[in-house]
Amino acid sequence: MTQQTVQRRVERLIRSDIRALSAYNVPPATGMVKLDAMENPYVWPEAVKQAWLEKLSQVEINRYPEPQAQAVKEGLRKVMGIDPEFDVLLGNGSDEIIQMLAMAIAAEGQCVLAPEPSFVMYRMIATFCRIDYVGVALDSRFDLDLAAMLAVIDARQPALIFLSQPNNPTGNLFSVEKIRRIAEASTGLVVVDEAYTAFTDTDSLHLLNDYDNVLIMRTLSKVGLAGLRLGLLVGRPEWLAELEKVRLPYNINLLTQASAVFALENFEVLQQQTQQLRVDRALLLEALQAMPGLQVWPSEANFLLVKVTDKPVVEIHDGLKQAGVLVKKLDGAHPSLSGCLRINVSSPQENGLLLAALGSLLN
Amino acid sequence: MTQQTVQRRVERLIRSDIRALSAYNVPPATGMVKLDAMENPYVWPEAVKQAWLEKLSQVEINRYPEPQAQAVKEGLRKVMGIDPEFDVLLGNGSDEIIQMLAMAIAAEGQCVLAPEPSFVMYRMIATFCRIDYVGVALDSRFDLDLAAMLAVIDARQPALIFLSQPNNPTGNLFSVEKIRRIAEASTGLVVVDEAYTAFTDTDSLHLLNDYDNVLIMRTLSKVGLAGLRLGLLVGRPEWLAELEKVRLPYNINLLTQASAVFALENFEVLQQQTQQLRVDRALLLEALQAMPGLQVWPSEANFLLVKVTDKPVVEIHDGLKQAGVLVKKLDGAHPSLSGCLRINVSSPQENGLLLAALGSLLN
Repeated sequence: MTQQTVQRRVERLIRSDIRALSAYNVPPATGMVKLDAMENPYVWPEAVKQAWLEKLSQVEINRYPEPQAQAVKEGLRKVMGIDPEFDVLLGNGSDEIIQMLAMAIAAEGQCVLAPEPSFVMYRMIATFCRIDYVGVALDSRFDLDLAAMLAVIDARQPALIFLSQPNNPTGNLFSVEKIRRIAEASTGLVVVDEAYTAFTDTDSLHLLNDYDNVLIMRTLSKVGLAGLRLGLLVGRPEWLAELEKVRLPYNINLLTQASAVFALENFEVLQQQTQQLRVDRALLLEALQAMPGLQVWPSEANFLLVKVTDKPVVEIHDGLKQAGVLVKKLDGAHPSLSGCLRINVSSPQENGLLLAALGSLLN
Repeated sequence: MTQQTVQRRVERLIRSDIRALSAYNVPPATGMVKLDAMENPYVWPEAVKQAWLEKLSQVEINRYPEPQAQAVKEGLRKVMGIDPEFDVLLGNGSDEIIQMLAMAIAAEGQCVLAPEPSFVMYRMIATFCRIDYVGVALDSRFDLDLAAMLAVIDARQPALIFLSQPNNPTGNLFSVEKIRRIAEASTGLVVVDEAYTAFTDTDSLHLLNDYDNVLIMRTLSKVGLAGLRLGLLVGRPEWLAELEKVRLPYNINLLTQASAVFALENFEVLQQQTQQLRVDRALLLEALQAMPGLQVWPSEANFLLVKVTDKPVVEIHDGLKQAGVLVKKLDGAHPSLSGCLRINVSSPQENGLLLAALGSLLN
């Protein structure tokens, strides 16, 4: 029972592709201005908060949650205008939904396709579920490279394609016409990940009417409920009935259910906040674009992709951290993100702290 | 895009073993005396509840949860007496932990072993993760059939063995000596599932000191926090570091973290309730044993296994439901459970309702 014995057992039992992974690293953030995680910085008005606590006081925490979370689904249907002919599946964040999708289609010879750079969990979770993953580089404008995508679809017939709309971490919308072409060409499922849909006028739900192999994934995280971890998938009942079979029966806990129902009943509060963030975004974009030594891309999400052109990006990233501002360093994650940071749009006050810190670092 | 087209796509894309599953069925329970799900019927004193809501009022629901949930782990360590040399991994209930275990070891030729009847999710989740499952029948006293288990271990070298201690749904403890023999013989991981440990004096944590391939799984569900969905795995860091890699990064949400920390700081409330349920269990056992037409097994958990000997079990099950009492029908789940029901131990009042309804049905 020596250390060595355990290590040998670990190597024999844990799959090598899992051993080769690093655990997802989240930096400590206590006391920092957190601009690294696409959180909504605005909080609920006190009266709303009190009404929420009143709802939580009625939760019977000693009881298992309602397994279907019907009230949550009804709230989502109403707020998002989901047609009754489509079903809703819930997960602990989009992460768990991606995992259910991958588990349900994972088989010898199947593969998952996503453009790159995009949300890193598509690849990670494909690995967890022992399914091949193919990444196709975006074009120079961060739009889908349709020819390259269609070539992979033709050659590999991916069982699952993830398209993040708008895309994380580039912030842009893909061409809707290209998404349609991919849905038409694909013999597998095409999941349009609308995590950031609250920050754009585009809405892909209507694609469900046109393509029987499209599913729409969303989350409440970016609109101001990151702490809840509630993701959803919308689509035809034929698909969702199968995915339901790999859902862990009580996955959405009672407090999440009660809080989500409450938040959806009071959704105008969150909608006002996301509208405000769109205003904040325009101001932040303008201010960053005015700074020398930066390239800034317009964004349809609640973050901005920023390239540090005249200094080592690590110097700016570390400097911001020392100034108490946490942003995400993307440099190293993908060739096209060389020198890049991803910066969360926040309140005018927090954006101001960022701009001040960045200003002195760039001078 | 006809119905037929979708159905063909579903059949081609969703794995046949997933399609063959039924989704986990949970019967509707509104207004029923719920004796089917091993919940603790006792609620928190009002002062405790108010103090909990005060904690929740400080939660920043717009922020992502602390990914490591360190405060929860510290609370668990203190309450459960977990040695610093062992690590703790958290999941949304034991279900998610079983899934992480299965994902990490799933590979061609590997298998999962569990005695039967036992917790049904061991088999279900093995299927989700494309890993073979071998069930070995318990002996006539519902103890482990050591010879049969060792034969499978010798022949198949299971990567993962689940031993529920005490066992669900039979309620008994397995012989500790047999668990030791299995741990010694196994070249894989042996997970002792102590979901019901609060209702017995047995504690398997000490096995971690003797066997480097043993892990201990627990949950807060049965002690009175079923609504939270918090499970944990305790074991050597070499194992948990690998399992951590397949954990979805923010799996334990903020409300769960805040509530678990609070509940662990006030754990004596839950401990008094589980002690009370042990007293309630003795009384319920005695009352059921005195009833004609029933065989009742002693239990180290918060439920009793009951066989209806003189009438069709479905008649009793349905009759109880009509009387407003929900219990679990096990008949059909495994040959050794023929005619059996699983009945949650509850408060004297709810146990009384059960006994009254059962009394009139058996006469």
